[in-house]
Amino acid sequence: MTSGFPSPRLSGEARRRGLIRWAGTAVLALQLTTLGCARTSDTGATKRAEPGGGAPAAADPLPSWNDTAPRKAIVEFVERVTKPGSPDFVPVPERIATFDNDGTLWAEQPIYVQAQFIVDRVKVLAPQHPEWKTKEPFASLLQGDMKGVVAVGEKGLMELMAATHTGMTTEEFARTVGDWIATARHPKTGRLHTEMVYQPMLELLAYLRTNGFKTFIVSGGGIEFMRPWTERVYGIPPEQVVGSNVRLKFEMRDGMPVLMKLPAIDLIDDQEGKPVGIERHIGRRPIAAFGNSDGDLQMLQWAAAGTGPRFSLIVHHTDAEREWAYDRDSHVGRLDRALGEAATRGWTVVSMKDDWKTIFPK
Amino acid sequence: MTSGFPSPRLSGEARRRGLIRWAGTAVLALQLTTLGCARTSDTGATKRAEPGGGAPAAADPLPSWNDTAPRKAIVEFVERVTKPGSPDFVPVPERIATFDNDGTLWAEQPIYVQAQFIVDRVKVLAPQHPEWKTKEPFASLLQGDMKGVVAVGEKGLMELMAATHTGMTTEEFARTVGDWIATARHPKTGRLHTEMVYQPMLELLAYLRTNGFKTFIVSGGGIEFMRPWTERVYGIPPEQVVGSNVRLKFEMRDGMPVLMKLPAIDLIDDQEGKPVGIERHIGRRPIAAFGNSDGDLQMLQWAAAGTGPRFSLIVHHTDAEREWAYDRDSHVGRLDRALGEAATRGWTVVSMKDDWKTIFPK
Repeated sequence: MTSGFPSPRLSGEARRRGLIRWAGTAVLALQLTTLGCARTSDTGATKRAEPGGGAPAAADPLPSWNDTAPRKAIVEFVERVTKPGSPDFVPVPERIATFDNDGTLWAEQPIYVQAQFIVDRVKVLAPQHPEWKTKEPFASLLQGDMKGVVAVGEKGLMELMAATHTGMTTEEFARTVGDWIATARHPKTGRLHTEMVYQPMLELLAYLRTNGFKTFIVSGGGIEFMRPWTERVYGIPPEQVVGSNVRLKFEMRDGMPVLMKLPAIDLIDDQEGKPVGIERHIGRRPIAAFGNSDGDLQMLQWAAAGTGPRFSLIVHHTDAEREWAYDRDSHVGRLDRALGEAATRGWTVVSMKDDWKTIFPK
Repeated sequence: MTSGFPSPRLSGEARRRGLIRWAGTAVLALQLTTLGCARTSDTGATKRAEPGGGAPAAADPLPSWNDTAPRKAIVEFVERVTKPGSPDFVPVPERIATFDNDGTLWAEQPIYVQAQFIVDRVKVLAPQHPEWKTKEPFASLLQGDMKGVVAVGEKGLMELMAATHTGMTTEEFARTVGDWIATARHPKTGRLHTEMVYQPMLELLAYLRTNGFKTFIVSGGGIEFMRPWTERVYGIPPEQVVGSNVRLKFEMRDGMPVLMKLPAIDLIDDQEGKPVGIERHIGRRPIAAFGNSDGDLQMLQWAAAGTGPRFSLIVHHTDAEREWAYDRDSHVGRLDRALGEAATRGWTVVSMKDDWKTIFPK
């Protein structure tokens, strides 16, 4: 069943779950299948931002945050760890902050952006693959029959991943992603995906960096899908992006070295994989972590369990008017266990509706 | 044969070669076996540094470099890529420089430092493992019979690696390495291993950073073996260290999250693995790369093949008086193919004897 896409790292349920999270394709399929009934209202998303919510005070580093508990907790934490002589002072090199991407820095509804990329790529590549007309899951996807895609199961998911993310060089893939994201638009709002980022989180990233933090993305999404645009959009350079990835192979092509993307999973950087990705790439434990779903739980636990001052924050999608409202029952970005643990452990929970003046950049 | 230490990534010769390079244990064995005949003179190493070689001119960023071709090439390259308006100007974020460690930043003779760590750890752990008295390769190692260690072959190498590098948490291992390296001394010079670093390379690292470069280590050595001390010794933080690594597993222990080091190879960051490690960790191609052996060839090729200005440098161990002299026939740090390619492609080759005033810090 998995002969074409071997994964030595995970097996069974964990592997299936991770694949779903990474590519988002099964979720995509589920979502498209149930469009209009499973999703909460997203009509408000076209409003983009509250009028009057974004006029920054001159000295305010977080103008899009209401003056509620989460903002107070953030500022109090940053002042505590940056005050010289304080018992909670943290030296600059140890000020590591990790951020989930989907649902924490940008919108993940109605489907993960990377899932939309897969759909679009299959359509673009179809003329070069006449066999896809009769080969599942490509045939169903090309006909818009998402139930057919779902019916093929995990094997189909992996074939979509392999067809769109592997078999090319890393540079070819980066160009493809860069070209796509420059023009691809959100299916509901019509905005560029890179405009569907959260203004308060952009301010938070900048605020932390101003205070000596190094900001990292730690996402279940593909590392090579994010790196072409994170520096421009978030100010986070490629070397500070951690994500799921496939194996690479060094080859010579006409005397020039290339790195080929292989159809074999290297790391699924989600759930238990997030602390693994953090250790692999960063090599020290974050003192602050930011997520929005159960996929972020282990990262939040890992950051919180270190010694000294710690900050863990969950973005709770509570705003059906301006964005989406979803948590325990959502297929995308399910927030269940982590919400319970946040209450138990006193982690900061942001209600997008109550705590953010603005959702998206103007 | 490999059941206890599965490696899905490499097989056969490449895997054996990589393991040897990584742990250095087989090399250690070979070296100890042939001590006194295979090695070139190292008697001069105890001299440490040339008198009068290190008095820096006030404005000289590279005082330990003679005013020969390599130094001129370095300065010319840095001035070229940092001069605003120049056609060869490289923006700061793209100024990525990667350095091999063993033999490029610190001494690797007569054995890799990590191999010495393995020997010392086996001795320390032996009382907890009475079975090692009769179990190979531990029995031979404990009796100082390195021929016996060699006789066990690859299986023995992997068992030594597993016994000393896995089965503990990442934090436990980091503490063990940190404690060891604080006191472990070079078998010939009696200096701390961290004092057997190359003064000219320390100056080069600082010079590049002063000019906006981000400096990374890309080593065949273990990533978790290097991270506990690279910031202190080289000014390179853990998140800028790329190396070989084993797989990690997130677990809860008494309610606290830990990352366990598993006896399974994740990446052998040597030869073809170096560009893979670079892409995985950095996500962009270095514009400058520094190595000393055939294990660095692919990294040098990868850096050199990018567009725009490029700099590739090989440290050639030519100084039997002050350090060691070895290249094409050495078991440790063999430099054969890469030396040929350097000549063909015009890469810079540093002769330690001719181009460095000082080898080690005073």
